[in-house]
Amino acid sequence: MNKSPNWRPVFIVSDGTAITAETLAHSVLTQFPDLVYEQQRIPFIDSEEKARETARRINAVQLESGVRPLVFSTFVDPAISRAFLQAADGFQIELFRSFVGPLEQELSMKSVHTVGATHKIHDEERYKKRIAAIDYTLTHDDGQTNRGLDQAEVILVGVSRSGKTPTSLYLAMQFGIKVANYPLIPEDFERGELPEGLRGLRHKLFGLSITPERLSEIRNERRPNSFYASVENCRDECRQAEDLMVRNGVSWLNSTSKSIEEIAATIINTLHIETNPA
Amino acid sequence: MNKSPNWRPVFIVSDGTAITAETLAHSVLTQFPDLVYEQQRIPFIDSEEKARETARRINAVQLESGVRPLVFSTFVDPAISRAFLQAADGFQIELFRSFVGPLEQELSMKSVHTVGATHKIHDEERYKKRIAAIDYTLTHDDGQTNRGLDQAEVILVGVSRSGKTPTSLYLAMQFGIKVANYPLIPEDFERGELPEGLRGLRHKLFGLSITPERLSEIRNERRPNSFYASVENCRDECRQAEDLMVRNGVSWLNSTSKSIEEIAATIINTLHIETNPA
Repeated sequence: MNKSPNWRPVFIVSDGTAITAETLAHSVLTQFPDLVYEQQRIPFIDSEEKARETARRINAVQLESGVRPLVFSTFVDPAISRAFLQAADGFQIELFRSFVGPLEQELSMKSVHTVGATHKIHDEERYKKRIAAIDYTLTHDDGQTNRGLDQAEVILVGVSRSGKTPTSLYLAMQFGIKVANYPLIPEDFERGELPEGLRGLRHKLFGLSITPERLSEIRNERRPNSFYASVENCRDECRQAEDLMVRNGVSWLNSTSKSIEEIAATIINTLHIETNPA
Repeated sequence: MNKSPNWRPVFIVSDGTAITAETLAHSVLTQFPDLVYEQQRIPFIDSEEKARETARRINAVQLESGVRPLVFSTFVDPAISRAFLQAADGFQIELFRSFVGPLEQELSMKSVHTVGATHKIHDEERYKKRIAAIDYTLTHDDGQTNRGLDQAEVILVGVSRSGKTPTSLYLAMQFGIKVANYPLIPEDFERGELPEGLRGLRHKLFGLSITPERLSEIRNERRPNSFYASVENCRDECRQAEDLMVRNGVSWLNSTSKSIEEIAATIINTLHIETNPA
């Protein structure tokens, strides 16, 4: 095992999928760039017995490594949570129950302790909306069709490989938003106009651009040493795409140093889209 | 505004995308099924001025509605966090800094207060892996190609519309896992064998099944009153697909009442895939 002085084993334990726990744990740990950690996700710990068993596993690692593990846990079931926290050594960070207690007070309501309520289909409608959004977004990827564009909540435009597809899919997956995306291609630049099908949909349009150097790098992975991937061509396309978007009053951002989440959140903000987590 | 006695305005405020905050807030609030809430996500509050201004917005809602808002916040920057918590009324739940302090102690490290570290591209390699996984998964959706199957970490099989595509995309998006998926079709059932290209890849295979009634419902949305969508045909296909998977020693689950997150987490667990959040 890695024995750097900054090394820690990290465990993320949950009676559900542990995905929420992992997301928050990850965002907390990124605040410690010097920390070297090995992370283990342990989901579906949905009985006190499994909880104690998991605790034993974690304690064994502490014993073996001589290093105190960081243990992030989210248990919906208070009994399982108690069983785990009592049995597990390591540095405990409980990401869930610590908020539920105070909320029960504030709301004078009891919480239901349904394991995995988070990612169970507790909301049939929202779930269907999410699946429908993913279907829609896939069939409207890369300008495949103009049919049903009126149903799109967001229409992304930008040069090829500027990040439209991952952003579209993220918006659909995370927020249940129906997204279409259209590549801006040399023909559009020659005509000096947005693709035909997009007229009158300006309020739904959002543009992605990217620095030519990065674009060239990405395109070279696909088509090495092609004109398509050359820095010169990328510089041309980006400049013309940005001109086109500006002239048409399309809000856009440069995706180069942004994560998919940041791009998605910016789009939702800019277009004032109502969201709920899908 | 809705004035049910169980109604609360909910605000999710962050100096980043607020996506992590929203995920956790959502999972906490699902524990209170009687709560009726209207949620507002307020991302990118990255200055003390914006923080105070957001606080004023929230306080105005409290004043106007006479109801105490629930305020979930995640601020990486302690100064902004302080400015916000001091200025905002409502019931405050701070989802982030409350863990960073104790961790600084435990690790005897100072945290960097880089806004949005979470969803910034702090890890270029991981980010590229994620994008590559999405590209791979899209080009290997629905049995499009057998090329490069050796690169797949997961190969999903199941009858058409059993949830393979959303699950594949989620695994790629959330965990950077390269996923291929293959429909099991009548030809496979007649041959009584898995699709040709999948031989020798059993260790990567995972199956999705679904109840015939639900499948018929989903297929009817696509092709109303078709034989394809009939309950009889769906019952047949599901039974034969499950037989085929069992005979070939493919682990599978019934996706009917499971969320994409649950299916994904189960697959990762079953196939023992190493993951980090993408």
